[in-house]
Amino acid sequence: MSTTDRLSVAIVGASGYAGGEFLRLALAHPHLNVTQVTSERNAGSPVHFVHPNLRGVSNLKFRKMAELEAADVIVLALPHGSAAKRIEQFEALGRTIIDLSADFRIKDPELYRKYYGEDHPAPERLQAWVYGNPELHREQLKGATRIACAGCFATSVILALYPLLELGVISGKDIVATGLVGSSAAGASATEASHHPEREGSLRVYKPVGHRHLAEAIQELPGRFPLHLTAISTPRVRGILTTAHVWVPDGYSERDVWGAYREVYGQEPFIRIVKVNKGIHRYPDPKLLDGTNYCDIGFEMDQETGRVVLMSAIDNLVKGTAGHAIQSLNIAQGWRETTGLEFAGLHPA
Amino acid sequence: MSTTDRLSVAIVGASGYAGGEFLRLALAHPHLNVTQVTSERNAGSPVHFVHPNLRGVSNLKFRKMAELEAADVIVLALPHGSAAKRIEQFEALGRTIIDLSADFRIKDPELYRKYYGEDHPAPERLQAWVYGNPELHREQLKGATRIACAGCFATSVILALYPLLELGVISGKDIVATGLVGSSAAGASATEASHHPEREGSLRVYKPVGHRHLAEAIQELPGRFPLHLTAISTPRVRGILTTAHVWVPDGYSERDVWGAYREVYGQEPFIRIVKVNKGIHRYPDPKLLDGTNYCDIGFEMDQETGRVVLMSAIDNLVKGTAGHAIQSLNIAQGWRETTGLEFAGLHPA
Amino acid sequence: MSTTDRLSVAIVGASGYAGGEFLRLALAHPHLNVTQVTSERNAGSPVHFVHPNLRGVSNLKFRKMAELEAADVIVLALPHGSAAKRIEQFEALGRTIIDLSADFRIKDPELYRKYYGEDHPAPERLQAWVYGNPELHREQLKGATRIACAGCFATSVILALYPLLELGVISGKDIVATGLVGSSAAGASATEASHHPEREGSLRVYKPVGHRHLAEAIQELPGRFPLHLTAISTPRVRGILTTAHVWVPDGYSERDVWGAYREVYGQEPFIRIVKVNKGIHRYPDPKLLDGTNYCDIGFEMDQETGRVVLMSAIDNLVKGTAGHAIQSLNIAQGWRETTGLEFAGLHPA
Amino acid sequence: MSTTDRLSVAIVGASGYAGGEFLRLALAHPHLNVTQVTSERNAGSPVHFVHPNLRGVSNLKFRKMAELEAADVIVLALPHGSAAKRIEQFEALGRTIIDLSADFRIKDPELYRKYYGEDHPAPERLQAWVYGNPELHREQLKGATRIACAGCFATSVILALYPLLELGVISGKDIVATGLVGSSAAGASATEASHHPEREGSLRVYKPVGHRHLAEAIQELPGRFPLHLTAISTPRVRGILTTAHVWVPDGYSERDVWGAYREVYGQEPFIRIVKVNKGIHRYPDPKLLDGTNYCDIGFEMDQETGRVVLMSAIDNLVKGTAGHAIQSLNIAQGWRETTGLEFAGLHPA
Repeated sequence: MSTTDRLSVAIVGASGYAGGEFLRLALAHPHLNVTQVTSERNAGSPVHFVHPNLRGVSNLKFRKMAELEAADVIVLALPHGSAAKRIEQFEALGRTIIDLSADFRIKDPELYRKYYGEDHPAPERLQAWVYGNPELHREQLKGATRIACAGCFATSVILALYPLLELGVISGKDIVATGLVGSSAAGASATEASHHPEREGSLRVYKPVGHRHLAEAIQELPGRFPLHLTAISTPRVRGILTTAHVWVPDGYSERDVWGAYREVYGQEPFIRIVKVNKGIHRYPDPKLLDGTNYCDIGFEMDQETGRVVLMSAIDNLVKGTAGHAIQSLNIAQGWRETTGLEFAGLHPA
Repeated sequence: MSTTDRLSVAIVGASGYAGGEFLRLALAHPHLNVTQVTSERNAGSPVHFVHPNLRGVSNLKFRKMAELEAADVIVLALPHGSAAKRIEQFEALGRTIIDLSADFRIKDPELYRKYYGEDHPAPERLQAWVYGNPELHREQLKGATRIACAGCFATSVILALYPLLELGVISGKDIVATGLVGSSAAGASATEASHHPEREGSLRVYKPVGHRHLAEAIQELPGRFPLHLTAISTPRVRGILTTAHVWVPDGYSERDVWGAYREVYGQEPFIRIVKVNKGIHRYPDPKLLDGTNYCDIGFEMDQETGRVVLMSAIDNLVKGTAGHAIQSLNIAQGWRETTGLEFAGLHPA
Repeated sequence: MSTTDRLSVAIVGASGYAGGEFLRLALAHPHLNVTQVTSERNAGSPVHFVHPNLRGVSNLKFRKMAELEAADVIVLALPHGSAAKRIEQFEALGRTIIDLSADFRIKDPELYRKYYGEDHPAPERLQAWVYGNPELHREQLKGATRIACAGCFATSVILALYPLLELGVISGKDIVATGLVGSSAAGASATEASHHPEREGSLRVYKPVGHRHLAEAIQELPGRFPLHLTAISTPRVRGILTTAHVWVPDGYSERDVWGAYREVYGQEPFIRIVKVNKGIHRYPDPKLLDGTNYCDIGFEMDQETGRVVLMSAIDNLVKGTAGHAIQSLNIAQGWRETTGLEFAGLHPA
Repeated sequence: MSTTDRLSVAIVGASGYAGGEFLRLALAHPHLNVTQVTSERNAGSPVHFVHPNLRGVSNLKFRKMAELEAADVIVLALPHGSAAKRIEQFEALGRTIIDLSADFRIKDPELYRKYYGEDHPAPERLQAWVYGNPELHREQLKGATRIACAGCFATSVILALYPLLELGVISGKDIVATGLVGSSAAGASATEASHHPEREGSLRVYKPVGHRHLAEAIQELPGRFPLHLTAISTPRVRGILTTAHVWVPDGYSERDVWGAYREVYGQEPFIRIVKVNKGIHRYPDPKLLDGTNYCDIGFEMDQETGRVVLMSAIDNLVKGTAGHAIQSLNIAQGWRETTGLEFAGLHPA
């Protein structure tokens, strides 16, 4: 496909990690042509000044948001709250809008208020947006022009729990989920906490209760059940490993769990069930997923108690953000769903 | 105290990480004089050939176990099952025996069989051993000559949960504990799984259900309640961070949790409550504990659900093994409890 | 291009890191079709058992080398010395042979003996092989059917030094090169030295003098000059950062160095000059190159002494091995040189 | 020794890494009693708010520098240039002053100007200060009351090169030294470059030419010879590994190198020669030195060329800064030289 047949893409807030990752993926995508990238702070600099992996790959330069012109696809990678407050401005510039922030993910303004601590600035628009999780909303995504990309931690929790909840086999016990997260999830701005001598090698609970992505899990997962999330920072840069503990009924076997995941995810191009009885790669490990759009899912059952430990691993910036968004866009546009997301990941890494 | 007034110490299996750590601590201990160290594989080599930190610190050489002679204190740092099978031999050589393995930790042969999959080789001796956890068994440790050092993961779980269980404020809900563990916990033998290119940066569940240290937690913690443990390997070398989720009754406040930990641990020399509302060091982090005997404990309450996230951090080789053992020995001998365990840890590290 | 139009590829020794990386790249290459992979140890297992990144990407299973059948391209990823000893066997099976080992890199049997400590097993064949470094041997590679892929450390040294030596501007002083190498360079076999608790965080000289790749640098670099190499292991898994110190004549300016690199490498698709005066990405960093075929080159001149510090960074498994080989094959076959090597690398990573 | 017999210590600038490390060591030192610590930013906070390793170890609180009162020993841990500009003020408050900055290290104002780019603010005072390197200046340090603690990188270079230069066996060839440095060397202030996602796993030349510590090496090392330094950042937090390449005369053997180091350093309590022909710990590795005051030195000779690769490893904050200072103070006061510096380091770590 020649460049002129491609959809033009403008990425607003492209100097951050989410915007930068969308840029990386879009530059290699055969149906997309990135024509504009904005960064207030880096306006005038070539993109490789901020994202050195793009040196020699792209000649784009950052511009200020005020200089934004029309494009087929507008990708918003702005801090929380910024997109919703000026959404009309962006709607005037492009037909398709993808928001990588949390602004349009929650449909219920009450739920939004509870987790974000303020009224939503544009509640009347919420229903127009499709929650950008292809595994749960593939049909809605077809033809969609407003895509609210799912949150990284939310994605890891939702994809781990969805099949057993959808099939109604989880008991009513409290579900405890624990997410181990890399440092890139906190964004591109240096802070005292992100100072390398302090952060390197650290294993630290940073959000024991009240994680905002819980709102997405509550909205998206079937049924009503008590769900708890605890987030822990790890020495990795990318990646999330989530474990979640659920209880299945007497007689429900490990084979049944296999069956449930196969039934729900059997055709999914980016979900792999990882559960091996020998060798050293028995369960999901985010180490293997850097740069890929996979969500690897594993599990193990405690026969004695009926507890099932569910595990999911993703790259928070790909399947957790920009890759998820590209996959959603591929569906929206009717392109092959895996287009531009073929990178298999590295071993060793 | 001159060297001749010190207790002589023989460490059996001193080329492993547990034995090596006991050796490091004992060499700096004012009341101990290490006179023998054994290693079948390294017999004849100076200790610094295996433990390079001891270069210039000790001139000891490894000998074979068959050459073991009498000593005041015999420290057993052998693979699982080895100590129990030849315990009479060691009892003939020394008055005080400290076992760093799991062989004498579990008092109930049934519980042992369930978690270790075989009959205990010397069940008649089990009652003679004191479980080497000073916080729970200080009185029993006074004068003790058989100390079964507590397991590293068990210690992190037990110390996190003990106060609230002891005071009876935890509801009957399932307790889910998750332990993040460094690579040294798997021992000094190279394996495919420990190969650096495979292990570095890895976040991998390695024991989702059925962890053997659960047996110790069941034995030591007050009350009967469903307890679940999942162990995850991390990129660190040392350290365990454990989170455990419990539920407290309506009206039980965060201040009450503080009170409970103060009441139970207020006089403990090696337990610190870490819960700060500002700055970057708000909760326990094993990164700060390398080489120290501290167990840092933190918590956070979810007001809405009554869930309390308990957190504990230790160095698995010190408070989790050799330091715990030294602390127990200090108590047994009537020495100041912190003797030889004064290292404060490094910042940054 | 349909699968049937592709060249069939057999990878011998595909369970190691070099063979596995060639497999990863070849699976995504539009003109290649991997039909056979061998591993004596893993025969019968699917490739993702060893290379978990290929789960869902390839259904290939390892077979034994004895079961090898004909293929258009035979890739040899065997331990040192193994390829040369049975090269006739491989020549009978395929038209094009790529050897990733050192067996056919050195043309001079004397030089080979000096660095490898033994006579070459097939010296009569040495001249038939092209040294697989596209930047130096592009013309020879066109149509080549015997490609001896350049060594990883050699590549980092040669590409850093080549322009200034080729243009004759380096003085006769001793050149000291230092290579910082990740753990994957030592291969996929677990050893005591690669045990994670020992290797993680280590900075250790492992080859202060006499590195074998020196033979390649001596063979390939123009002129005669004393060259010294010291190799240091680092905590990374992938990557080599090489610094080399050379002296330029009075009056030769930094601008002249720029000019030299532009003159020699200006058209190279995989060499990027990285030298920036502001921001945080001023010089090459292997951290940014994982999975890519780039060689990033930088430099800085000490005006006072005429010393120029040259720097090069590569991924040892890609530009240092398998990517270099694919690039050479692309040239040999007349395909676009960057085919299958488009991955831009990640930021952050 | 009771607390009242100890020397009182005030640490000015104790929230940085150098000051914090001096504080850690001084708190455990039997002849010192830290009575004051200053931090403009953290005045009023307990020291463990900044240095969490000191929780439960010290109840000291930071005060502002303006509140500084008299003390037996004043330790200055201020940014470059700050100590010299107000040195009279500090001299009025204490008999002994230890400066951890570079302000009083260089005796020659011309050399200072060349490397620091400005005139020294108090050149008349320079001769009163002893350069705080015990191995070179032990006699001068006895009774000293002005100690200018040696720089971390300078110490690693000087201690590696000193014996062969002192004995006059190094040829006149250019000496190239390369230092691999951890992130703590850049201090406690968060910057873009120290942001964990950018810094973690990085191998990046940060000072190819013109490193300021070169001034110290020029001043301290015997003879005149061209010396070059290149500094590279590594993924570690602490530690420096320096390699330096020198050439010895024909006939000078490896045994002679051994002899030289034994002759010069044979009685040094903190220098260990690490050169082993088997096992995995053959050369110095900063990984083993975290928290210790050792400088491990190794070497290897290239028989063919007479090149000797010298290696030194230190903890930049201990032997490179605060430990070196304590050692110097021990000598100045006539205390046992190793007092308070007995920590052996960890294995594994």
